[in-house]
Amino acid sequence: MELLEYAKSVAQKVDSFIVSTIDGKPRELYEAALHYIRAGGKRLRPLMTVLAARMAGGYEDVAIPAAAAIEVLHTFTLIHDDIIDRDEFRRGVPTVHRLWGIDTAIVAGDVLYAYAYRCLLRAVDFGVEHSRIVKAVEYLTEGAIRVAEGQMLDMLFSRREVVSVDEYIEMVERKTSALFIAAVSMGAILGGGDERLISKLREAMRLAGIAFQIKDDILGLVGDEKTLGKPVLSDLREGKRTILVIYALQRLNDERRDRLLRVLGNSQASIEELRKAAEIIMSTGAVEYADKLAREYAERARHIIESIECRDPDAKSMLLELIDYLVKRRF
Amino acid sequence: MELLEYAKSVAQKVDSFIVSTIDGKPRELYEAALHYIRAGGKRLRPLMTVLAARMAGGYEDVAIPAAAAIEVLHTFTLIHDDIIDRDEFRRGVPTVHRLWGIDTAIVAGDVLYAYAYRCLLRAVDFGVEHSRIVKAVEYLTEGAIRVAEGQMLDMLFSRREVVSVDEYIEMVERKTSALFIAAVSMGAILGGGDERLISKLREAMRLAGIAFQIKDDILGLVGDEKTLGKPVLSDLREGKRTILVIYALQRLNDERRDRLLRVLGNSQASIEELRKAAEIIMSTGAVEYADKLAREYAERARHIIESIECRDPDAKSMLLELIDYLVKRRF
Repeated sequence: MELLEYAKSVAQKVDSFIVSTIDGKPRELYEAALHYIRAGGKRLRPLMTVLAARMAGGYEDVAIPAAAAIEVLHTFTLIHDDIIDRDEFRRGVPTVHRLWGIDTAIVAGDVLYAYAYRCLLRAVDFGVEHSRIVKAVEYLTEGAIRVAEGQMLDMLFSRREVVSVDEYIEMVERKTSALFIAAVSMGAILGGGDERLISKLREAMRLAGIAFQIKDDILGLVGDEKTLGKPVLSDLREGKRTILVIYALQRLNDERRDRLLRVLGNSQASIEELRKAAEIIMSTGAVEYADKLAREYAERARHIIESIECRDPDAKSMLLELIDYLVKRRF
Repeated sequence: MELLEYAKSVAQKVDSFIVSTIDGKPRELYEAALHYIRAGGKRLRPLMTVLAARMAGGYEDVAIPAAAAIEVLHTFTLIHDDIIDRDEFRRGVPTVHRLWGIDTAIVAGDVLYAYAYRCLLRAVDFGVEHSRIVKAVEYLTEGAIRVAEGQMLDMLFSRREVVSVDEYIEMVERKTSALFIAAVSMGAILGGGDERLISKLREAMRLAGIAFQIKDDILGLVGDEKTLGKPVLSDLREGKRTILVIYALQRLNDERRDRLLRVLGNSQASIEELRKAAEIIMSTGAVEYADKLAREYAERARHIIESIECRDPDAKSMLLELIDYLVKRRF
């Protein structure tokens, strides 16, 4: 089956699972909580969960609760991150805190957090052994802890001048890879996978997450706002130490470096100044460097996946294709 | 054993369990996350968990992971609620968002949320059956969902003029009772309890939670700031529809009602105006009404606990004493 077609069918199952699970009062809270889920999104993480479950020999349906859980957890992080980054748009719609205010956005994120667990627990209905569910809860929890650590590192880095590539990778392993890792770990454990398979999938998704984030950094600088559904250049305004910024700061002469630093993290910076800063970054070859780095990480991830012997070659080849997409996508 | 002495010994175990479980990088995040736990607190919910486990025939130690989990979840709600309520002090120390900023406070709450689950999952080490752990995770999740709903209702009520006593009770069942209910449910299931015991404990703690919140409302109006470790009268500034405000608004004449409404939710209100508003509320007999109501709810809770036949009469009598304390406490 085509990856795109399959992705759509999984997304449909996951969405209807989520919508049937997340329901309650007061209405405002649930409207805010479901806002991004209704606005669309690629549902990449649920797809990873389902493919991992299939590679472990499980049925697709057994992984839907975990697939929903990872998407819901991811959505909670988006709501809180958008508050922190003061972002105004996401998936082509105004951010939750812009529509409902910061207070409601905090609580909407909080309620989704718990619903991630509630989604996962419904795996009980699919006859999964309790010991495997407990393990899946551990994976979800590990992902949630690491993503919070990553978010904090990202914030701390924005306030620093110098961040090394190693520090960046460490941050991204938490901020981005952690949920990719949780996605496949949960899928594989619910699908009946053993430790060996799970550890290979985890390492592959650690690398794939880094590749994905580097690509995200690139799109945040040179992407198309309409296609992305969120503003470009806001990373610069927020002072984010993206891989591009790190690379550029290491290579610029003092004068151009100072010019860039004056714009980075300056919430008052004009569009003109942001564009100029982006040009300065691009002049160092940062985009080409980052693009190459992303492809290398993706290639290492693919290499690990290729080494897995599994009962479902179709699922394996779709996971390989998915990793390829992570670095080739345009939104 | 004396309740106070026992409470201290449980608190010690829970605290060292929490501190040994919650650890990681970056340091700032963990400092912020552990701030309120280090500042003290009564550890009422962990005590409920442990007593419920004992009443179910379990050992105290088997309930420590769940006792830690409920305290950690409670602490996360405090951090986020303090942001939302713009509170400046808690447990005699500056609030997390005042010390680290709102962004870090959001993430500190988020990381604690996940650690609540991680604490609970350590029940595996105590040899608890996986099916009981899954059930405990469900209880924790239910508590987290309902506490978010309660927080949202509390916020929505602050923007409304009229809130009925029934609506108030419904809000408090979520905002306050939900974690009491989760506390005993988790304790009882890990301690080996059956459905009948759990449902009695849950109903008792629903009532006890209402009693506790009404007492909290009273202390927020007439309590001593130093003893409480947090500011009094801030409920009025935030426009909270406490049981006292609801009662007073139903009984005041138009002129005094308008005077009260001008202060309620007015972030610019002076201390003098807040004091005057408090006097207006007290003039209606609201404190006496609330005190009586709290005692009635506590009495109903005690009645249910008394009806439980259990193997640990000592635990049962301590739980009865604890419920009594909820409405007699001065902080």
